[in-house]
Amino acid sequence: MKKTAEEFAKEQKAISISEFFEKNKHLLGFDNPTKSLLMAVKEAVDNSLDACQEAGILPDIVVKIKNVKEDIYEVMVEDNGPGIVKEQLARVFGKLLYGSKFHRLFQSRGQQGIGISSVTLYSQLTTGEPTKVWSKIESQKKTHYIELHLNTVTNEPDIMKQEDLEKGVLGEHGVKVVMTLHGRYRKTVEDYLKQTSISNPFAKILYTAPDGTKITYPRSVNELPKPPKIMKPHPYGVEFGTLQRMLQKTASRTILSFFTNEFSSVGTQSAKEICKIAKVQADAKPSDLDRASIEKIIKAMQAVKIQRPPLDCLSPIGASEMERSLKKEYPNAEFVTAITREPSVYRGFPFLIEVGIVYGLQGETSQKGGKKNKEEDEDERNGEAIELVRFANRVPLLYQQSACALTEAVKQVDWRRYNMDQKSGSLPSGPMKLIVHICSVWVPFVSESKEAVANYPEIIKETKLAIQDAGRKLSSFLSGKHRAGEQKRRMQIFDRYAPEIAGALSTLTKSDKKVIEKKLKELIASRIHIKEEPENVEAVEAAGKENKNIKNKTEEEED
Amino acid sequence: MKKTAEEFAKEQKAISISEFFEKNKHLLGFDNPTKSLLMAVKEAVDNSLDACQEAGILPDIVVKIKNVKEDIYEVMVEDNGPGIVKEQLARVFGKLLYGSKFHRLFQSRGQQGIGISSVTLYSQLTTGEPTKVWSKIESQKKTHYIELHLNTVTNEPDIMKQEDLEKGVLGEHGVKVVMTLHGRYRKTVEDYLKQTSISNPFAKILYTAPDGTKITYPRSVNELPKPPKIMKPHPYGVEFGTLQRMLQKTASRTILSFFTNEFSSVGTQSAKEICKIAKVQADAKPSDLDRASIEKIIKAMQAVKIQRPPLDCLSPIGASEMERSLKKEYPNAEFVTAITREPSVYRGFPFLIEVGIVYGLQGETSQKGGKKNKEEDEDERNGEAIELVRFANRVPLLYQQSACALTEAVKQVDWRRYNMDQKSGSLPSGPMKLIVHICSVWVPFVSESKEAVANYPEIIKETKLAIQDAGRKLSSFLSGKHRAGEQKRRMQIFDRYAPEIAGALSTLTKSDKKVIEKKLKELIASRIHIKEEPENVEAVEAAGKENKNIKNKTEEEED
Repeated sequence: MKKTAEEFAKEQKAISISEFFEKNKHLLGFDNPTKSLLMAVKEAVDNSLDACQEAGILPDIVVKIKNVKEDIYEVMVEDNGPGIVKEQLARVFGKLLYGSKFHRLFQSRGQQGIGISSVTLYSQLTTGEPTKVWSKIESQKKTHYIELHLNTVTNEPDIMKQEDLEKGVLGEHGVKVVMTLHGRYRKTVEDYLKQTSISNPFAKILYTAPDGTKITYPRSVNELPKPPKIMKPHPYGVEFGTLQRMLQKTASRTILSFFTNEFSSVGTQSAKEICKIAKVQADAKPSDLDRASIEKIIKAMQAVKIQRPPLDCLSPIGASEMERSLKKEYPNAEFVTAITREPSVYRGFPFLIEVGIVYGLQGETSQKGGKKNKEEDEDERNGEAIELVRFANRVPLLYQQSACALTEAVKQVDWRRYNMDQKSGSLPSGPMKLIVHICSVWVPFVSESKEAVANYPEIIKETKLAIQDAGRKLSSFLSGKHRAGEQKRRMQIFDRYAPEIAGALSTLTKSDKKVIEKKLKELIASRIHIKEEPENVEAVEAAGKENKNIKNKTEEEED
Repeated sequence: MKKTAEEFAKEQKAISISEFFEKNKHLLGFDNPTKSLLMAVKEAVDNSLDACQEAGILPDIVVKIKNVKEDIYEVMVEDNGPGIVKEQLARVFGKLLYGSKFHRLFQSRGQQGIGISSVTLYSQLTTGEPTKVWSKIESQKKTHYIELHLNTVTNEPDIMKQEDLEKGVLGEHGVKVVMTLHGRYRKTVEDYLKQTSISNPFAKILYTAPDGTKITYPRSVNELPKPPKIMKPHPYGVEFGTLQRMLQKTASRTILSFFTNEFSSVGTQSAKEICKIAKVQADAKPSDLDRASIEKIIKAMQAVKIQRPPLDCLSPIGASEMERSLKKEYPNAEFVTAITREPSVYRGFPFLIEVGIVYGLQGETSQKGGKKNKEEDEDERNGEAIELVRFANRVPLLYQQSACALTEAVKQVDWRRYNMDQKSGSLPSGPMKLIVHICSVWVPFVSESKEAVANYPEIIKETKLAIQDAGRKLSSFLSGKHRAGEQKRRMQIFDRYAPEIAGALSTLTKSDKKVIEKKLKELIASRIHIKEEPENVEAVEAAGKENKNIKNKTEEEED
């Protein structure tokens, strides 16, 4: 043996979580300069939105990016949120796996306690610059200011400077953060802010780009959405280890009250049924249950019919809000629709899918060119894949599209049923923007950078059903459009031949050619009523609904 | 405000790494039962191979999967490695981020100290069963046995049972581990073992499937590969924070000796040049350098021409070994080739790409059917995407193909240049198996489950170059095959008309038809030399090489 167990032993040691992520910074989303700059903006803005929304404040957010030199950028994000107390300020920005969101079943943008501290880690790794934070809370007169690094050995903040400022840079309350890092500036920052504005219509964002350009993303709604409630786990999908821990920790005295107290959607009736199926006494002490009983309970929990989780634990954008917002954003679209599904559950976590469709997008350049350009533009776009826009808890997902469960679901849908072109297993093609939003108290991302949703079968299934719901609406519109197009083409043919027929008739009947031609045209127009726009969409939809039930059935069988 | 900063503060707290991964178990690869079972086998086998190889022992590995009941499986993996000392045994199997590989720049299968403890975490979460480990080290007479859980609050092992056994289940030295978990059995386990056997020809693996089937993957090489050397970081790609820390920690007294001592491939000449460009005194004390100087040094380090990292820090399979191994595995393939590139660097980490091509794979079912079936089979396969087999440090990557940098590189190559069909941006199609192997002292995976390589541009670029090298060889073969096919078709046409021509000539010349026909056929055969197999591949390749330089140039321009 070249190396003994004792020699190996000398090399065994613990790895700090910060060392791990420093070496694996791509896991946090810092795998190229463009993305790194976006990550800094995104983590700060997402935190601001979360804080404002939870505190019940309409968010006013200021974002400014400055090109310090060459590939070094300064990112500043300021909000009017509740602020962060002095004692916790450094850890929120300078310790990985620290935060208020991980331990609550609560729909929020952040969930891991990693995001903003990872920007501190990346900044110091690429420029050595500390993160600078100002925080003002309502109950204190002074603004607290700190400069910090993240100590990669201890995973604790190294505070380099800290002081209370008499004259605040902030209003009554809020946080301002400045981070200096290696990056590259691209329009992705604007894409992110624009999409964020669509999914958070209650937020106002003022943005200054590195070249000084200022963009305002205004509030289009003056009210915050109803705040999602913190929820208890749903029994479907709870695992052995989780249940075991819950049984040990619970204050409930009987297994019956344990079920009704610690889970959502479980009433006495369901709780009794679980006990019956699992052959466990309803008045048994939770911590007394042995492994065999826990196993039986797990099975019984899946077997008993339990209500879906309550709607109020999730905060979707809402079908009508999304539709309004999309119509505002794409005023020239031919067709816009949106749907919100009922919540479903994976691993005990409720989630919900929303889908929006914008069809018949006109290229911004050809918009002025009128009808002909529009048609050409559409023809060109027909061959291209649709644009897929993904959101998770109102946060736009701009990277790793092909690794995402939402994308997978879009590909798995048979779009030809909805009159769209599609190579099997690919995104459909055509002039369409498809919005897919997942809301959940815990979104399972494929990596810490939160760019793509993991392929849980329940999530793919629900997303497919949501797309199919929206797809049926699209399909009705498209067949109406198709019929209108057919009629128009027929009319054009008659139109072309009318002068010749009129000429012939004029020779035969010796009447005035022009009179005949005029009458012919009137006849055609009266028979085939042509409009520039396709037929009334509601009417077409209503007609389409007759077949809906049958279609629905077939689709469910397919899944 | 509905919620103040003080109220928020009450909810802020640290998240244990184990809680984090328990909730995010899909990050560790446990997102469905089939994959979870595979992960358990994979993490244990990879550890065994690493331990044996580093200890200089030819690996003998036993893998056994038992279906305990319904969806519960017991995975047993036993090796003849050096064993693990008692003091560290529990932590290796029951603490996340603990191990011997993270802190060394050393090519190994494991690198994060997460793998096997994640299986302990998953087992207890899904079945509550502890992980059982036997370890025998050479210097001790007794075998040490433990049963453990992973405490998710402390991220430390909870040892439930521990004893020294007089009568060992193991030989002189080795480790045996048994884990019980929720899973689903599929052939992916066999795929993994088969591919592992290809990339580790020095290992012997005995496998027993849940139904009792036994498969032996024999050793095809009786020697371990040359052990890779532990290396120092390469100057290219070192980041500010890393350099800053190195400068603080170094024992070198001058910046000049710092460069030559702490980096690989840096001689006195290069070190002096770096100092000169950075305008830093060669005898400056490393820890005295300020931020501005460090920034300048970083830039200078990229600007100075420094040798590639030494070959001996990486342990590729080797082009000839891979070719031999592929020919053994696919004896009926029409064409097999393999290439190994020189090492390159990303972020200071050296890495190297190997590519193997197996063309003209016969479906196992049609193999008996002879020529006709073979052709049909090939025609059918022509439309299908090639099979891509990815390896990282000799470990097969079976999931997340579309998220992988290696796949991205395959898609980016213009395969039509190499006579392969390809829809642009897709995998090429045809009866081909493409093997891509990345070796590195630090493979950047897209998640902790190590299923796909992150999209670092340097890695994509090198992989493309490697594929192009192998693609040129394939191209020569395919054009030879194409020419041979053309000639054969021409011959067949002559053949078909020969009797008729002979008949006509016979009538005209009044000679014997059969004699004429025979002579005609001889004439054709002498003119067009037909072989069943395509022309000698080397000769075709040699002919192809004339154009190689030109091709090469074009390709490099493209990149």
